[in-house]
Amino acid sequence: MPLGTLTIVGVGLIGGSIGMAAKQRRVAQRVVGVGWRQSTLNLAQDLGAIDEGSLELRPAVTEADLVVFCTPVQMIASQVQEAAVHCRAGTLLTDAGSTKSVIVAEIEEQLPDNVHFVGSHPLAGSEKRGPEYADPLLFQDRVTVITPTAKTDAGAVDRVEQFWRALGSQVLRMSPEEHDRALALTSHAPHLVASALAGILPAELLELTASGFRDATRIAAGDPELWAGILLQNRQAIHEAVNRTLMQIDSFRAALQRGSSAELIALLQQGKKVRDALGD
Amino acid sequence: MPLGTLTIVGVGLIGGSIGMAAKQRRVAQRVVGVGWRQSTLNLAQDLGAIDEGSLELRPAVTEADLVVFCTPVQMIASQVQEAAVHCRAGTLLTDAGSTKSVIVAEIEEQLPDNVHFVGSHPLAGSEKRGPEYADPLLFQDRVTVITPTAKTDAGAVDRVEQFWRALGSQVLRMSPEEHDRALALTSHAPHLVASALAGILPAELLELTASGFRDATRIAAGDPELWAGILLQNRQAIHEAVNRTLMQIDSFRAALQRGSSAELIALLQQGKKVRDALGD
Repeated sequence: MPLGTLTIVGVGLIGGSIGMAAKQRRVAQRVVGVGWRQSTLNLAQDLGAIDEGSLELRPAVTEADLVVFCTPVQMIASQVQEAAVHCRAGTLLTDAGSTKSVIVAEIEEQLPDNVHFVGSHPLAGSEKRGPEYADPLLFQDRVTVITPTAKTDAGAVDRVEQFWRALGSQVLRMSPEEHDRALALTSHAPHLVASALAGILPAELLELTASGFRDATRIAAGDPELWAGILLQNRQAIHEAVNRTLMQIDSFRAALQRGSSAELIALLQQGKKVRDALGD
Repeated sequence: MPLGTLTIVGVGLIGGSIGMAAKQRRVAQRVVGVGWRQSTLNLAQDLGAIDEGSLELRPAVTEADLVVFCTPVQMIASQVQEAAVHCRAGTLLTDAGSTKSVIVAEIEEQLPDNVHFVGSHPLAGSEKRGPEYADPLLFQDRVTVITPTAKTDAGAVDRVEQFWRALGSQVLRMSPEEHDRALALTSHAPHLVASALAGILPAELLELTASGFRDATRIAAGDPELWAGILLQNRQAIHEAVNRTLMQIDSFRAALQRGSSAELIALLQQGKKVRDALGD
């Protein structure tokens, strides 16, 4: 650090926030954004998220020192492969995908030897999309998980960690599988369940919701295609996390059926204890 | 309106907010609070939620024109009965309980003829407790459901509706059973599910949560005893609402197992459509 050229593939909420944070903190001399619509690139540039935009991947990565892929999870591995063959030797590649095992395994299978990939997942964002929701402080004091494997170059891991720290993030290292099992419980299964809670509500009951329902289902407003990709890429761990959730719901149902206030209180206290530990 | 004496039984977040709104909007000439701890009554008085406090129900209701019960749902019916025998003829009684069928039925069974009860449920609040979280604007532009039955005095219903409107609330009328079926879907089952999501999270994964998990589980921080009471009083409707949620979760699981992106997208869109209709 600082980098010469940082290329961000996908300049939405996450990619745009990376660009803004990198420019404001002078993490890179030049930030290039790759997108599929000129209007999005123009907006990202106007908002100070990138210095220049490109509709093509190849010219945007040839001079990059670091390329960050902030595209839907099902696209990341093939985009990394495509970019890698055009990169200079020593170029560092990472991503911001919400799943890691499939992405990292697919990339490691055929990455050229002269570039390095390290999987990343910044635990930040919202149900919103687009550079208009980007925020240079998005990563401040939040956690980014990086997922090196036995095959990952140690120097590359350190540099990717430095990059996220330079954007204000804390960094945790774990294996892709460990990441995916954890995120199934902290993000993917809750998303599925929140979507189910929202999805079954008849329209005529909308006026009978209050802040509790709005909070509990806020993530259900997330982009369905993005989330279908995430759910599919982590289906095994999500299956297990949903099963654990259902077992807990069954405990509630059994306590309700027995009319046991003490059992219900104990179950509710278990949830409260976890939630209180997180603060507001 | 305006009332002479408004008595609020239970001066926590809801009762305190009613008192503040009533005093600021001059809905009553005098607001009396009933509580179980002198310190809470003192705090409510210091915060401008009540004019005076009482540790006893009887002296606080004898001069009341309107008594609002803001206590845990399992206490409301017996407190209303206890208060009713000490009230003047024509006194109006209502409540702010999150369940209605059991409360209304128990009260109607033996209410003296010279007083009137109308069930109410203001759809406002939070996971917090105590008058320190009271807010005079809590009911502003929110919905309060009132639940008259065939036995309820029509004039009393109008007066209770006027009372909530005077606090800034919109008012909807429905039967206690209709209320309970609706709230099972919009509040009680979501609470149970959010608590389950929080309850199964191992402590070591707390640092891997982001805003999505915090939003989805915020209500799980609610008071376990209060919520156990609500869940038990509305167990049949909650049982049905949880079943509908589980059927939707099963549809997600089936789509995941088939690896069907199209099915997952359709399910996620169903949730997004509902959630988008609610706004932020």
